[in-house]
Amino acid sequence: MYTKKYTVRLHDTDAFGVLYFANQFRIIHEAYEEFTDDLGFHLNKLMDQSQYFIPIVHAEASYNHPVMMGDTLKISLNVENISVHSYSITYDILLKKILVGTAKTVHVSTHAYKNKKVPIPKSLRQALEKHL
Amino acid sequence: MYTKKYTVRLHDTDAFGVLYFANQFRIIHEAYEEFTDDLGFHLNKLMDQSQYFIPIVHAEASYNHPVMMGDTLKISLNVENISVHSYSITYDILLKKILVGTAKTVHVSTHAYKNKKVPIPKSLRQALEKHL
Amino acid sequence: MYTKKYTVRLHDTDAFGVLYFANQFRIIHEAYEEFTDDLGFHLNKLMDQSQYFIPIVHAEASYNHPVMMGDTLKISLNVENISVHSYSITYDILLKKILVGTAKTVHVSTHAYKNKKVPIPKSLRQALEKHL
Amino acid sequence: MYTKKYTVRLHDTDAFGVLYFANQFRIIHEAYEEFTDDLGFHLNKLMDQSQYFIPIVHAEASYNHPVMMGDTLKISLNVENISVHSYSITYDILLKKILVGTAKTVHVSTHAYKNKKVPIPKSLRQALEKHL
Repeated sequence: MYTKKYTVRLHDTDAFGVLYFANQFRIIHEAYEEFTDDLGFHLNKLMDQSQYFIPIVHAEASYNHPVMMGDTLKISLNVENISVHSYSITYDILLKKILVGTAKTVHVSTHAYKNKKVPIPKSLRQALEKHL
Repeated sequence: MYTKKYTVRLHDTDAFGVLYFANQFRIIHEAYEEFTDDLGFHLNKLMDQSQYFIPIVHAEASYNHPVMMGDTLKISLNVENISVHSYSITYDILLKKILVGTAKTVHVSTHAYKNKKVPIPKSLRQALEKHL
Repeated sequence: MYTKKYTVRLHDTDAFGVLYFANQFRIIHEAYEEFTDDLGFHLNKLMDQSQYFIPIVHAEASYNHPVMMGDTLKISLNVENISVHSYSITYDILLKKILVGTAKTVHVSTHAYKNKKVPIPKSLRQALEKHL
Repeated sequence: MYTKKYTVRLHDTDAFGVLYFANQFRIIHEAYEEFTDDLGFHLNKLMDQSQYFIPIVHAEASYNHPVMMGDTLKISLNVENISVHSYSITYDILLKKILVGTAKTVHVSTHAYKNKKVPIPKSLRQALEKHL
């Protein structure tokens, strides 16, 4: 499990006074980027010369409780599943002790130029397995 | 069924050169806002004096094909289900004849000040039913 | 002069109930992208093989009046100035007859791989000159 | 002077591979929110019961150097000027030792319900003055 804190900022909110639903996806992806940085697998290395492109093919989220500007969230990230070509990450979002939201993203390893799946890069697989 | 066109703009994309996944949620919500405007039920009327607050409690999306800056998408919106307190909307996103993505949002009618579900406003229910 | 309409959506607003200031920049850039599409100079052609990279080097905006969700804005775009290597665009944002905001962006033509200015592509220059 | 670090994330970038210009405004506003939290003047206290509304009336930024995903920026914030009804903040954005960007925001203290300027709240004025 990997955890990070995030304080909700004005740009995260909307005119109903709460976190705009799509921004919860952006926030959990920030946690995912920090997590992969922490694993030593920087996503920006997938740009340019890389043979890999690992897009999100599915994302989902639930919203249990309003979240406001200034709220400090604790995001817990878990690797839920790893197969040959894909992996999924789950996220719990806590405000104090309340589970205000959950999310899940599914990532598929593909060849950057050819339209086909390829096995997850070995260094990424090894890093992810530590967080299963 | 309600359809709208949307041209992907620079701010929708990311450094991988494609639509950033969370922005697909923002784009389908724009379609939802246009749809409700079209029904004559403007969401901004839910602000201020309204007794209703109708948040999204669940959202999910799939991504089947890369989407680029300048692509003109056709978004088809359907009311999938209406119960006493909630309804769900599904979205198909087409680029030419390719189904590049799908999405779903679930909305729950709640009392704006009390923490409880309330029946969907009658005018909204009647409008939604025409699109079942 | 080029004009487009834009209806303010929920994601444009913040918890103060009004357009979030940075989103005004995003909205005027959408107008700029539509404008260049209309000129026949699609900005996405600057990606990949292009020798040109034409970043914004300066941007500014004023905010005269609150803008709300559902407001339909009329954005008027003018080419203010063209020099050998750069051009500037100004934007007036009207809500009914009220000038709610203004903006300006300054764009510089550079070589995509070498760190130096290059003359604006001829086809873009000719297109822009029609809107001076 | 107040400083904070910010690591550029995927959602900050666009298909040209660099920080999207409007996101620099969002990033400096996050610094401004952290700064005011640090002063003990939480901006969200201006919502709801408050008599004050302190919108940005002008914003500008310059962009000197490309900024990429993964870059860790150091943002230095200074209070440039305080008058009876308004104040301005300037921002320097450094990547290692390179000044990659600058920005400025001008804020005006207004009555939340009446359309008129009011003096800056005393507690905010005193806090800002320490950073002149």
